[in-house]
Amino acid sequence: MAQYSSMDKTALTEEYKTLTQAYETYKAQGLSLNMARGKPGSEQLDLSNGILGAITETTNFQTADCPDCRNYGGLTGIEEARKLFADILGVDESMIFVGGNSSLNMMFDTIACMMEQGCSGEQPWNQQGNIKFLCPAPGYDRHFGVTQYFGIEMVTVPMTENGPDMDIVENLVSNDASIKGIWCVPKYSNPQGITYSDETVKRFAALKPAAKDFRIMWDNAYIIHDINDTPDSLLNIFDEAKKNGSEDMIFEFCSTSKITFPGAGVAALAASKNNLDILKKRYNFQTIGYDKINMLRHVNFFKNYEGVLEHMKKHKAVLQPRFEMVIHTLESELGGLGIAEWTNPNGGYFVSVDVLEGCAKRVVELCKNAGVVLTGAGATFPYGNDPKDSNIRVAPTYPPVDELKKAMDVFCLCVKLAAAEKLCQ
Amino acid sequence: MAQYSSMDKTALTEEYKTLTQAYETYKAQGLSLNMARGKPGSEQLDLSNGILGAITETTNFQTADCPDCRNYGGLTGIEEARKLFADILGVDESMIFVGGNSSLNMMFDTIACMMEQGCSGEQPWNQQGNIKFLCPAPGYDRHFGVTQYFGIEMVTVPMTENGPDMDIVENLVSNDASIKGIWCVPKYSNPQGITYSDETVKRFAALKPAAKDFRIMWDNAYIIHDINDTPDSLLNIFDEAKKNGSEDMIFEFCSTSKITFPGAGVAALAASKNNLDILKKRYNFQTIGYDKINMLRHVNFFKNYEGVLEHMKKHKAVLQPRFEMVIHTLESELGGLGIAEWTNPNGGYFVSVDVLEGCAKRVVELCKNAGVVLTGAGATFPYGNDPKDSNIRVAPTYPPVDELKKAMDVFCLCVKLAAAEKLCQ
Repeated sequence: MAQYSSMDKTALTEEYKTLTQAYETYKAQGLSLNMARGKPGSEQLDLSNGILGAITETTNFQTADCPDCRNYGGLTGIEEARKLFADILGVDESMIFVGGNSSLNMMFDTIACMMEQGCSGEQPWNQQGNIKFLCPAPGYDRHFGVTQYFGIEMVTVPMTENGPDMDIVENLVSNDASIKGIWCVPKYSNPQGITYSDETVKRFAALKPAAKDFRIMWDNAYIIHDINDTPDSLLNIFDEAKKNGSEDMIFEFCSTSKITFPGAGVAALAASKNNLDILKKRYNFQTIGYDKINMLRHVNFFKNYEGVLEHMKKHKAVLQPRFEMVIHTLESELGGLGIAEWTNPNGGYFVSVDVLEGCAKRVVELCKNAGVVLTGAGATFPYGNDPKDSNIRVAPTYPPVDELKKAMDVFCLCVKLAAAEKLCQ
Repeated sequence: MAQYSSMDKTALTEEYKTLTQAYETYKAQGLSLNMARGKPGSEQLDLSNGILGAITETTNFQTADCPDCRNYGGLTGIEEARKLFADILGVDESMIFVGGNSSLNMMFDTIACMMEQGCSGEQPWNQQGNIKFLCPAPGYDRHFGVTQYFGIEMVTVPMTENGPDMDIVENLVSNDASIKGIWCVPKYSNPQGITYSDETVKRFAALKPAAKDFRIMWDNAYIIHDINDTPDSLLNIFDEAKKNGSEDMIFEFCSTSKITFPGAGVAALAASKNNLDILKKRYNFQTIGYDKINMLRHVNFFKNYEGVLEHMKKHKAVLQPRFEMVIHTLESELGGLGIAEWTNPNGGYFVSVDVLEGCAKRVVELCKNAGVVLTGAGATFPYGNDPKDSNIRVAPTYPPVDELKKAMDVFCLCVKLAAAEKLCQ
């Protein structure tokens, strides 16, 4: 089929009619499909069921630095878990703090801590008047949510195929001391699946912010989450920071939410000694310690980093055909029409689709009315405001495969329908 | 033996010499004993090992309101866990929010939430200038720690045998709008083991604070933690609040930390709809949800509230002889000497000992030098400042029984030694 933009009014109107008929047919089926969130599917969850038997009554609850994991104590987590996360993140064990089941919660607490205590000898953020955070977009809606909750102004930075536009980041950060940080998903970014280039990572590590208390929130959520055999590789930000003496600028986060169970995984952060000291001051009042039994459960299940990587191959095997099917459907249904562009990531949990400008909300609405739930249009931008109303995040992991296929068919149809609608006007 | 105060200088000096000799004998033994924290002992932890098998690969992960506990979602916890905590606290299930492994963390987050958002239509606490919290003392050091972290001024309220001195509480609360809350451990209080009388609870529920945004932090940590067969009973604060229309004034907390595992239990809070709405606004940004697998593990292990109560009988059987031994040692070593008073609680985790005024720090120091670690003197008071330097918290649950006996012997000796030292001056 020709590009929509090259079709004349008659042909477009005809196309619109055909699409509407097909749409009504789907609508009549009373579908109930969901591609909204980056949730693992049940086949993936089953991969980790073995972890439930990794702790039993006869387990030795004494670990390297904890006399009994069942009891209180051990604020930074058990040593074996710190080691495991240190290996995953490629940092020294002394930089690791192991937390509860949610890295989002650790990021939230980190921002809260900076608001209350401040860092690098500066005033607490909540006493500095209006402060700002850079938000590369499209990005992760929950990052934006945390920022908004704390009343921090969000400044959108465009994404490029190499990560955030570093010319813009450098310019803003070095000139505006009210900019206190930036959110990054450096590998297989949410939602585009972009991995920051070596140059981007180096430029991050070499930033010279006007604000001494500027912090990079390096959310490495998909650090080992490949979906095919041509994985991306990401420079280690702390290695680069060391060369610049900028280790204090970085908080790195990860979790096993998409390795074992999203509801019952273990989260961790890596930070310099200075930053850990600040966080620990708060954590020391906040809790006596996180769930060490669940840490030990993970350690016993995986044994070591190699065990984690082996496990991730099983996830890849489940996810690869799903992503291939999504990409294949996009190509066969929308390829060459000039009404949509999409990413083809090597890992992560999403495919990002840019539909015709001004059509994203309409596509999501059309899908919803046909029983297919997508992430809300605009959610991938600060304040839910996509200036082009173009970006849609497709999450192919959760629905059963047959449902995913149908959901993608509906989605592609709605992309076409919304485009034809617009061009007919 | 006679009261120390009635002994003449010669007799006292003789006593001091004898005690010093005995003390040196203990010191020479190189003891390493710990009665510092309210940690369950390993015999207690073993009681709950069965919970580790309460979830297996073949568990049904679908619950009443959660399609799969292993996955994301379910911000307020699974329905079955909410029901269990509702039964424990005697409130409606709709009032329950189930959290992570730490009720301290939930209290910390609640205070943080009030600091950031405020409540009852008032300004956030962190925008109201100097604000205050009432701290009944002796009390729980970690409550005081949270208060201090957030820069809230602590106002000490004396404890009576019926709970906090309510004349003082009512007077302060009704006249000073900068007083925003009060910490309470209403049953088997930490450290005295006092249970608030019916009248005290009724007066709490009937408080008419000058501050609309005044909140009672009702930490019901020991709600079902009896240690003998003559347990105390506590009025249900929410029942009383209902009669006064004051439900919005109360946050209630509890956890299974001292029911199953301190490191891997489940915490919960109960609150009115208005208060839950405020908390949920924050939690909704803070996390996607807490560990539902661990909630289900608890539900499967206990089945229901009756199961929890049966389980608590086993704890009682372990704890009763320990507390009896502590009380017996205190009576036989210090009884009639006029140099110490202590509580004899029916539940909880502590025995509170008031030694001769000005001697608490010295007793703790003497014990430490003989290898027996106690909670720091003063820790039970705001800012670590016991104005009489008299209160010491004894925690009999953690050490093995034979060590506990020896630790108590050393403790009593040090109480006598410090008293003799002082009276000889």
